[in-house]
Amino acid sequence: MTHRIAVIPGDGIGKEVMPEGVRALQAAAERFGIALELAPFDFASCDYYAEHGQMLPGDWFEILKEFDAIFYGAVGWPETVPDHVSLWGSLLQFRRRFDQYINLRPCRLLPGIKSPLANRQPGDIDFYVVRENTEGEYSSVGGRMFEGTEREVVIQETVMTRHGTDRVLKFAYELAQSRPRRKLTSATKSNGIAITMPWWDERVAEMGRHYPEVAVDQFHIDILTANFVMHPDWFDVVVASNLFGDILSDLGPACTGTIGVAPSANINPEGTFPSLFEPVHGSAPDIAGRGIANPIGQIWSAAMMLEHLGHQEASAAIVAAFEAVLAEGDEAVLTPDIGGRGTTETLGRAIAEQV
Amino acid sequence: MTHRIAVIPGDGIGKEVMPEGVRALQAAAERFGIALELAPFDFASCDYYAEHGQMLPGDWFEILKEFDAIFYGAVGWPETVPDHVSLWGSLLQFRRRFDQYINLRPCRLLPGIKSPLANRQPGDIDFYVVRENTEGEYSSVGGRMFEGTEREVVIQETVMTRHGTDRVLKFAYELAQSRPRRKLTSATKSNGIAITMPWWDERVAEMGRHYPEVAVDQFHIDILTANFVMHPDWFDVVVASNLFGDILSDLGPACTGTIGVAPSANINPEGTFPSLFEPVHGSAPDIAGRGIANPIGQIWSAAMMLEHLGHQEASAAIVAAFEAVLAEGDEAVLTPDIGGRGTTETLGRAIAEQV
Ligand SMILES: CC(C)[C@H](C(=O)O)[C@@H](O)C(=O)O
Ligand SMILES: CC(C)[C@H](C(=O)O)[C@@H](O)C(=O)O
Repeated sequence: MTHRIAVIPGDGIGKEVMPEGVRALQAAAERFGIALELAPFDFASCDYYAEHGQMLPGDWFEILKEFDAIFYGAVGWPETVPDHVSLWGSLLQFRRRFDQYINLRPCRLLPGIKSPLANRQPGDIDFYVVRENTEGEYSSVGGRMFEGTEREVVIQETVMTRHGTDRVLKFAYELAQSRPRRKLTSATKSNGIAITMPWWDERVAEMGRHYPEVAVDQFHIDILTANFVMHPDWFDVVVASNLFGDILSDLGPACTGTIGVAPSANINPEGTFPSLFEPVHGSAPDIAGRGIANPIGQIWSAAMMLEHLGHQEASAAIVAAFEAVLAEGDEAVLTPDIGGRGTTETLGRAIAEQV
Repeated sequence: MTHRIAVIPGDGIGKEVMPEGVRALQAAAERFGIALELAPFDFASCDYYAEHGQMLPGDWFEILKEFDAIFYGAVGWPETVPDHVSLWGSLLQFRRRFDQYINLRPCRLLPGIKSPLANRQPGDIDFYVVRENTEGEYSSVGGRMFEGTEREVVIQETVMTRHGTDRVLKFAYELAQSRPRRKLTSATKSNGIAITMPWWDERVAEMGRHYPEVAVDQFHIDILTANFVMHPDWFDVVVASNLFGDILSDLGPACTGTIGVAPSANINPEGTFPSLFEPVHGSAPDIAGRGIANPIGQIWSAAMMLEHLGHQEASAAIVAAFEAVLAEGDEAVLTPDIGGRGTTETLGRAIAEQV
């Protein structure tokens, strides 16, 4: 059985890290005898927009839905296309239309990478952020009134549904239950955001009745971000709304040294539609074109994709490979963000060889 | 001329740190010959709620509006009153009804306090968060539909106005302009929160035309929280919406070692209504009753209040006092959160004596 994978590099450093993601993926596929068919696409990028006046072709949904997974780089090039146009025209469409309602983001301090936090060792930081990925604060409902006048009012509605909330909570509880510590933390803000978030708390408590073995706590998002810095060892699985999950899954990886290594899986657990795998980092216009972006976020995303496709061993081999290369700590190989003087390619090649 | 100040300890550790805030305040008033009249109130606390079934008396607005300032401790006791009830029934009322539209929160690494960030010294972290304090994501518009059924939908509207946004931007630009680095960072999320936040970006750019000397940049809130940890030295003045400001002003102080020292000023710049001064930390049920809460957040808030009332020297004397006590580093005096074995009172007394 051949897995068909759509490969979309996107913009900026997405185009630089994707070849290394593919290299590691193919190395693992070869070693474990996995048949892959990789189909590259140039859409869902700002270059495509420049040519076609839109981010995606009209039939993108039909094209992509036939794939087993989507392997994405990064999107956004604000110099030519405003971020909200490029993002709502690509990634955020995929998540919504393919009902990838889970955004799973591991956050782990890796060997050889220095945390910006004092005295933290690998093992001290090791948790998952489970982010709701289709609704909540990321809504398309609202608008401007009295536009251009002193009376201007702008409204955007946060929309949470029981359907959308319960399924992400269920996923998070199951994940927490499967881990040794069995601990779930809910990100809330029910003291201030007093309509949606108290309701979120109720759903967390309600779902918890089915998982008596999972220890649950909750923090308001403000103090939760503080605790990520002060006590990252407290966390095991953190479940959050779309916006809060977005914030926590950049902050968490920053506490592990660099968001350059962080992967993410946008999952449609039922498999009705393809899931999407991408690094947490963006297109990084500030360093794009220099070949120095860290490819590990993309490579780790490849590992998550293989796991999703049922290849646990191949996935673990990729993770073991970048851990080994990091532990080795060869400055000529590592990218500058983690203290090296190598390039995207030197690091990517070293990892692929290790696989 | 006598300044009339309403003193509201509130709940939990609010009741423990307030006496120390008052002690420092009175010491400074005495030294600089400032006439103060302090009027204590037991409302705006969950104890008051337990007795009266509401957080505030019916005539709170008339009572408090006669004061020159409100000195507040902390509010919230979720065991007896849900947070959204206690907060919307007190602090959030004050901010809104007294149009305290600026929430000003300094974030500074103090001598003698260890940052959880590796290798950061006093001087490395020194910025202000200017938070919009009356509208935005903290809205009372929305509700539940199909309640209690599988189809349940919950909506909460973020409401931003040009009036409300421009005035906080103006304050932030003025503050940035007055500081040596003249740097302003805007917290946005216009790639994902694609109705309100692109508009926020436009207002930031528009207001910037009046402040050509201020260097402006912007970050999406996710990567901004990451940069607070990775590059806290980048920031000078950070301006943010109500929710983003809330998050950043807990995270920032956490990066300086403890949120126990962080103060805040809820300001009505026109002086139409009293401004309110309170520590950033909450009522902290987990440590309440043990007399170990750090009083510096409350004491620094007293300094901000004196400054607001026109007593720059007295304000500076309080800040110099707690900096001196911290630099001394006597473990018998300091509270446990900053590595000591003293109490709220030992630390408070040491600071008042120093004043
Ligand atoms: C208690 C809570 C409602 C409040 C807020 O969110 O504004 C607090 O966190 C703060 O920062 O002052
Ligand atoms: C690019 C942006 C719209 C996106 C998001 O906010 O979801 C990104 O930050 C992420 O975390 O995947």
